[in-house]
Amino acid sequence: MRVLVLGVDGYIGWALAQRLAHRGYDVYGADNFFTRRRVKEVGSDSVLPIPSIGKRLIDFKKFYGRELKFFRGNVSDPGFLYRIFRDIEPDVVYHLAEQRSAPYSMLGLKQANETMVTNIVSTLNLIYAAKDMNPDVHIIKLGTMGEYGTPNIDIPEGFFEVNFRGRKDILPFPRNAGSWYHWTKVHDSNNLMFANRLWKLKITDVMQGVVYGTGTKEIENSHLYTRFDIDEVWGTALNRFAAQAVAGLPITPYGKGNQKRGFLSLEDSITCLTIALEKPPDDGEYRVLNQFDQYYSINELAETTGEVYREMTGRPAKIEHVPNPRVESEDHYYSPDHKKLQDLGYKPSGELRNDLRKIIGDLMEYKEKCVELRNVVMPRTSWRDSSGL
Amino acid sequence: MRVLVLGVDGYIGWALAQRLAHRGYDVYGADNFFTRRRVKEVGSDSVLPIPSIGKRLIDFKKFYGRELKFFRGNVSDPGFLYRIFRDIEPDVVYHLAEQRSAPYSMLGLKQANETMVTNIVSTLNLIYAAKDMNPDVHIIKLGTMGEYGTPNIDIPEGFFEVNFRGRKDILPFPRNAGSWYHWTKVHDSNNLMFANRLWKLKITDVMQGVVYGTGTKEIENSHLYTRFDIDEVWGTALNRFAAQAVAGLPITPYGKGNQKRGFLSLEDSITCLTIALEKPPDDGEYRVLNQFDQYYSINELAETTGEVYREMTGRPAKIEHVPNPRVESEDHYYSPDHKKLQDLGYKPSGELRNDLRKIIGDLMEYKEKCVELRNVVMPRTSWRDSSGL
Repeated sequence: MRVLVLGVDGYIGWALAQRLAHRGYDVYGADNFFTRRRVKEVGSDSVLPIPSIGKRLIDFKKFYGRELKFFRGNVSDPGFLYRIFRDIEPDVVYHLAEQRSAPYSMLGLKQANETMVTNIVSTLNLIYAAKDMNPDVHIIKLGTMGEYGTPNIDIPEGFFEVNFRGRKDILPFPRNAGSWYHWTKVHDSNNLMFANRLWKLKITDVMQGVVYGTGTKEIENSHLYTRFDIDEVWGTALNRFAAQAVAGLPITPYGKGNQKRGFLSLEDSITCLTIALEKPPDDGEYRVLNQFDQYYSINELAETTGEVYREMTGRPAKIEHVPNPRVESEDHYYSPDHKKLQDLGYKPSGELRNDLRKIIGDLMEYKEKCVELRNVVMPRTSWRDSSGL
Repeated sequence: MRVLVLGVDGYIGWALAQRLAHRGYDVYGADNFFTRRRVKEVGSDSVLPIPSIGKRLIDFKKFYGRELKFFRGNVSDPGFLYRIFRDIEPDVVYHLAEQRSAPYSMLGLKQANETMVTNIVSTLNLIYAAKDMNPDVHIIKLGTMGEYGTPNIDIPEGFFEVNFRGRKDILPFPRNAGSWYHWTKVHDSNNLMFANRLWKLKITDVMQGVVYGTGTKEIENSHLYTRFDIDEVWGTALNRFAAQAVAGLPITPYGKGNQKRGFLSLEDSITCLTIALEKPPDDGEYRVLNQFDQYYSINELAETTGEVYREMTGRPAKIEHVPNPRVESEDHYYSPDHKKLQDLGYKPSGELRNDLRKIIGDLMEYKEKCVELRNVVMPRTSWRDSSGL
């Protein structure tokens, strides 16, 4: 089975490619190194050292005994994507090739527009490439739990039954995202749902929680590390908290820290994405999966990180709430469903403390790098101050 | 009061500018003539003769006794929009400057992407220009009733109370549009709702029905005619039906013709848009208005057009159902609310027969043009066949 990973050079893409190779798939990848460039632009870097794609591909072959055929280019360019489809005729395409940072999208109008255009056009190109070149392809698209926002009711998986003025319908669950980035994922979901209605494309739309972790069970060789970002633009909560502890910096929840979100380890993310491939939707189905392990408040995560760090090192970690740079509810109901992936075989590992031990252990080896990046860890990108020209 | 009309050269924009001048506002306009160019590209033309913008502006001043200051450029260019804001400091901005044709957006990937980017970026630019330059400006944005699709329940105005598993919330009503064009309006609505949440911008988001008619009460002078499109890409149902009757062609509902949609005359559209300005939302409010007069099935409209034409001319008009080029329900429940504009003073005129008499009468004067355009009236753009490179 030929599997194409768009965004193969990224945090999830590079780990996913390895799992797929490990499980015997023919893996193809594409990337334009957008994240590498943009991370450098904010003065940051991956804490785990990641070699160039050329070296990565050599080590990939050495370790997994099979080649990963790589295409360098931009999925926002339809010609590039159509050429790949023509060349390799993929059976499954993972679309992880979008601008993935909420703070980046909020830096200002330029980045807001760039995020909108890059993400929406890339998904539309994929829709048409599938429709024109292989309507049977299974598209697995990475969305986010953040599409739903924090409504005062349970969050179903994509659709729900509505009773309104004595009548019923099954409708898409209303989305209410919290950054331009998150909104692009909503727009993508809408466009994918429509493409499915038009042309019966087979689509899994993954509403993924926040991913944390330094690796997966395959990634033993440091040459095959995936990237690990901790700065305020490209890093995410738990990874950043662990790095803050390791660097001797305070752990900094935004605002009150009562915000709740779904989280999962990189290991679980890759497991779920593989399940999505191996347990595909029916032909012509548009399937929405809520993909996370547990949900936690940001405070729980900060405290658990601090405790694990103290257990491991004997040193305390300070928790210091900072003004919330985002516009979001800090006290809210949160109860998202996540049943469908479990019905397909996913067992949420719920091993936050173990996961944190692994992350902190790995980061201790790169403590100097964490310290070096301390100036880009604290929030600077303000949702309120985002402006234009 | 300084009122800026983005898309002032268009069907609604040009009529709106005249109403605003008539009511004593200082009117400013911008356009890039996208519609003029694209209509020509499909071999079509406005049935009513429309002069160049230069001539339009001269006659505008002659007739209304005040100048309309015009800016030529593209609202998708943030620099252009920021310069206008700096120059004129508008109190109200109507955003009518989007790609407005559903069939155009379905021609293929190129047009789909163009529609996505043009529309979404233009609205995002407007959001940032407002936020940066004048956060008190009232943005009146043209959306479409087509954002809602045809759910099996009543359609409220933007938001509704959801009861789900014993809990309640007020949430955005789920959208389910029927073309890439219609989806861009959904994406815009989502982005506007979020901009309001972020920065308390004052926004009226107009979910407008299908507009028909050759003019408004101000437009007496043929030099001030607004455009009137009848081709399958740029024309809309009722206007096309009237032109088909006048040209001696069969009136062609798509598919079964039981599709129901909200409709309103251009006169009513301009009246409602003016009410939106004169009865603004509260500061910091995001307001959604469903804007239409009545809803009809396409068959009712086709039959009424035929009857009015026969009454006026003594000649019958043939109705000929053609295969539906769209992917849409042809039998469905339809019951959208439209109470808010009536609460603000709008009286739905419900004068379809009178409106049709006026349209058919006006078109009789341009019968030759209707006949000349007969080859571009029949549907060619197929939702099913839309493809890429």
